[in-house]
Amino acid sequence: MTDEIDDLAGLRDRLRAFVAERDWDQFHSPKNLSMALAVEAAELVEIFQWLTEAESTVLDADRRARVEAELADILVYLVRIADRLDVDLLQAAAIKLEENARKYPAERVRGKALKYDEYD
Amino acid sequence: MTDEIDDLAGLRDRLRAFVAERDWDQFHSPKNLSMALAVEAAELVEIFQWLTEAESTVLDADRRARVEAELADILVYLVRIADRLDVDLLQAAAIKLEENARKYPAERVRGKALKYDEYD
Amino acid sequence: MTDEIDDLAGLRDRLRAFVAERDWDQFHSPKNLSMALAVEAAELVEIFQWLTEAESTVLDADRRARVEAELADILVYLVRIADRLDVDLLQAAAIKLEENARKYPAERVRGKALKYDEYD
Amino acid sequence: MTDEIDDLAGLRDRLRAFVAERDWDQFHSPKNLSMALAVEAAELVEIFQWLTEAESTVLDADRRARVEAELADILVYLVRIADRLDVDLLQAAAIKLEENARKYPAERVRGKALKYDEYD
Repeated sequence: MTDEIDDLAGLRDRLRAFVAERDWDQFHSPKNLSMALAVEAAELVEIFQWLTEAESTVLDADRRARVEAELADILVYLVRIADRLDVDLLQAAAIKLEENARKYPAERVRGKALKYDEYD
Repeated sequence: MTDEIDDLAGLRDRLRAFVAERDWDQFHSPKNLSMALAVEAAELVEIFQWLTEAESTVLDADRRARVEAELADILVYLVRIADRLDVDLLQAAAIKLEENARKYPAERVRGKALKYDEYD
Repeated sequence: MTDEIDDLAGLRDRLRAFVAERDWDQFHSPKNLSMALAVEAAELVEIFQWLTEAESTVLDADRRARVEAELADILVYLVRIADRLDVDLLQAAAIKLEENARKYPAERVRGKALKYDEYD
Repeated sequence: MTDEIDDLAGLRDRLRAFVAERDWDQFHSPKNLSMALAVEAAELVEIFQWLTEAESTVLDADRRARVEAELADILVYLVRIADRLDVDLLQAAAIKLEENARKYPAERVRGKALKYDEYD
């Protein structure tokens, strides 16, 4: 029976308690947390590095379990660092999406994967 | 006026629409998305790399804005890859937290930052 | 006219001088250098993230120039961190290759890209 | 008795033979190799992530062995990708150093760790 987590605020609170019980706040500077996040992101990359793109879309049970565990780790560190720096992740994402909508107008970038400064 | 996003499902849906309008699904294999996620995580690391841990906890306005943008990018790719592979992020995090609680009993690891296989 | 560099020892010496002139040794802890190295590695990944594998083998002039610059940055930080920790890179690589030859016997792994603990 | 490797060209040749014997060239697209390189860089970061900068400069025997192995892995993938794309690593580094000397004049950046576009 896994204790459910309802939303990002719920996860943030569970993590606060987890860290406090272990006295791990001393290690959780934003600098260190950014390193931990990058390490987990690389562990996700490692699962896919020798697969073709097509293979990466259809995972066997073992790879799927590893992917789920890495995605969870990434979310955990992302929520921790946002908490340490008092960032509202969903609001930041909403702002980012509006910027991206301006930088990448659908009619200009359709079907093309360039950076916004590469469009002519 | 930024369009608010209420929760991870709301973000997932906004991203689906954004990608569909641009016909970018063809680029969004889990393999490629994992690379994009790792790149964004590294851009976060870059902000902190020459700061001390103490400096990383107190950001000026410019650095804070860059951190928020990077956290947003990471969340965006995390939600995209979870969507492509049909992973429930909060459930995966809940499972992970229970595993971590078993691997790192508070009384044994208090104040120590070792990997679970390094405790004696 | 670029001043030629003959070998890894030559690069190490040039970097020592470059860093000393700028009084940057204070920033070059192995921790920080590992972050900088990971950031440069991700900048290389960024060039390839939306390309197919086939496209990644044939680069136009602009991408080639960016790849060369990123590979240079990675080598620079790799040599710096090895210097800080007094590691002989070529000797470490020779040892690693012998380990890999044992872990991945040619007859067992031919044409397969698995980790050494996945072979049956 | 480890077979010595004299220089980067020697390492490149040893790696070519290693890969050919295992028929692994098919996996070694620049895209995939960039992923593998980033993964190894992150494994180096992992060793340092919870250490202070001061701790990262003085490693016990176990950590030192892990660092050496990761630095070797990074060098191996760096040399592989340079070989695949026909890049002369030392020449690329020499060019980069001259660019950096221009971008970061010693008298302006002494003791400061900013990006070149942050100096006023």
